[in-house]
Amino acid sequence: MTSKFIRPNVAAMAGYVPGEQPQDRRYIKLNTNENPYPPSPRVIEAVRAAAGDDLRLYPDPMANAVRDRAAQRYDLARDNILVGNGSDELLSLILRACIGPQDRVVYPCPTYSLYDTLVDIQEGEIVRVPYPSDFQLPSGLVEARGRVTILCHPNSPSGMPVPIEKIETLARSLEGLVVVDEAYVDFSAQSALPLLRKLDNVLVLRTFSKSFSLAGMRIGLAFGAPPLIAELLKVKDSYNVSRTSIAAAAAALDDYSWMTENVARICRTRGRLIKELRARAFSVLDSQTNFVLARRPGVSLEPLYRQLKERGVLVRYFATPELFDALRISVGTDAEIDALLAAL
Amino acid sequence: MTSKFIRPNVAAMAGYVPGEQPQDRRYIKLNTNENPYPPSPRVIEAVRAAAGDDLRLYPDPMANAVRDRAAQRYDLARDNILVGNGSDELLSLILRACIGPQDRVVYPCPTYSLYDTLVDIQEGEIVRVPYPSDFQLPSGLVEARGRVTILCHPNSPSGMPVPIEKIETLARSLEGLVVVDEAYVDFSAQSALPLLRKLDNVLVLRTFSKSFSLAGMRIGLAFGAPPLIAELLKVKDSYNVSRTSIAAAAAALDDYSWMTENVARICRTRGRLIKELRARAFSVLDSQTNFVLARRPGVSLEPLYRQLKERGVLVRYFATPELFDALRISVGTDAEIDALLAAL
Repeated sequence: MTSKFIRPNVAAMAGYVPGEQPQDRRYIKLNTNENPYPPSPRVIEAVRAAAGDDLRLYPDPMANAVRDRAAQRYDLARDNILVGNGSDELLSLILRACIGPQDRVVYPCPTYSLYDTLVDIQEGEIVRVPYPSDFQLPSGLVEARGRVTILCHPNSPSGMPVPIEKIETLARSLEGLVVVDEAYVDFSAQSALPLLRKLDNVLVLRTFSKSFSLAGMRIGLAFGAPPLIAELLKVKDSYNVSRTSIAAAAAALDDYSWMTENVARICRTRGRLIKELRARAFSVLDSQTNFVLARRPGVSLEPLYRQLKERGVLVRYFATPELFDALRISVGTDAEIDALLAAL
Repeated sequence: MTSKFIRPNVAAMAGYVPGEQPQDRRYIKLNTNENPYPPSPRVIEAVRAAAGDDLRLYPDPMANAVRDRAAQRYDLARDNILVGNGSDELLSLILRACIGPQDRVVYPCPTYSLYDTLVDIQEGEIVRVPYPSDFQLPSGLVEARGRVTILCHPNSPSGMPVPIEKIETLARSLEGLVVVDEAYVDFSAQSALPLLRKLDNVLVLRTFSKSFSLAGMRIGLAFGAPPLIAELLKVKDSYNVSRTSIAAAAAALDDYSWMTENVARICRTRGRLIKELRARAFSVLDSQTNFVLARRPGVSLEPLYRQLKERGVLVRYFATPELFDALRISVGTDAEIDALLAAL
């Protein structure tokens, strides 16, 4: 009965399933790539300061306090930047602005599975180009001729980066748009942002959920050519980012070194985690993110995921043919990683 | 050049233009229907309490703390409720879930012009049924056979309610969905929520931006049959409402009388404002919202809007053939209304 109100493409969808978010806090939570360190005290102070009588007023629709700081930080202009309610919203805005029925969206897989959901909502055509087992960028992306091509750089769940020169070559070879989803880039060596000076068909996305320890505040940034940003603005809800989230993002950019120090700490722990997992016969790539993908090729790791959960450690298991033999493990504190290794 | 990346329907759009949000605070701001009274101190306290180390963690994707309180308050079940990043996001989710190219969306006009933008993004067909000058529900809504029919109740910018029995008759006569946008309903006598017990094709939307004094926090609620809510969930971003907004909404529902007392105060001021405007030869309907529509039939009020702005009072002027002879004035505090009347 209900389905008669719903578009067939949506009725047929399963919907994106996020990682478990138990509300009771009993777990060592290494399943959704949250930062194990708290946000900057200056961020917390800024959110508390924003929590006053002014909450009765709408926020700045453009979140210019954030755009201006991001422009300075990333050496771009205000008009290159759009602030989103998390980078998930920005992905959604891009596909709503660019993709209609049968329009093609291309990405190497496995990757962030939300892309599938968002293309399905638009009735777009998904072309998945499989990654090889070493997760180097596969060929075939140009030939697939996407109206939009998405690269998750570094990729989830592999943790592997895409060399920037390969992104540039791809963008120059394509007539469509290239979206570089840099949710994890602060944990890696190189960003695609400099490409924006040379190319008008590249959009770069960032989030404050990982490196800035602000998953709870929902803040993302899109960077691109001003005419592109102006088109995305038409699709954006007027007041998409709250007053407290604007305050948090602005303060986080003002205390940038808080983020980079936490990132350095996480990268050190990541090195230790990779070494220890390899010593336990897992196959692990050299992640450039705040998680690692631990594999036992050909062996389902679902039982291990369940056992770890019973022991109070939550990691991410993807029940797909491509990933059934892997666990994605967020890099926690050293103590959390010790607990994980003990549980293993 | 840019337009080649963008869908033609989006490239052709002007985009919704929200009311002015000057960031310098020099104005008596009666243009975007914000509540002149601050949110509950318990809300502010809850937001500050939520602003801690936990901001590093994702929020509850379902915002169940809010759903459970809303279920209790409105005598419904958790599964009847979806929490949005403002009711604007909920409108967008509904149209994304239900409207594809050429699908028809019907609403009486003039009304909230964001509906136009959201239908255009979906490449839907808009059927506007004109309101008569007394803003009673026009005939022709059933005959227009919308896949979705939207009623803003009470309507903006007229301030006029739709009798609930008329909404029921309409919903029973239509095969499609009826969305009742109750952004302003707390300032009126009757809600369409009881219809949810009888009809499976009605969705009711609420916002915390007006009566709850929380425009800055972006919180909206959708109420409907559980199978409908489940479909909307598929289209929603997983983490669409931040931790601080969840905390604010939950605390606002816990301190419900704070809202109703402010609403009573605003309704008293509204009565005085209507009387004073009529004494100044404006034609004013009996608003059931926190704003009034003041008309001088046939006379453009753009000059008056500009003069008021020069004198530090911001009201809303719509440069359309239907509304050029009207100003929409939010009901402020008594002192703000005195200042407006003095400026007039």
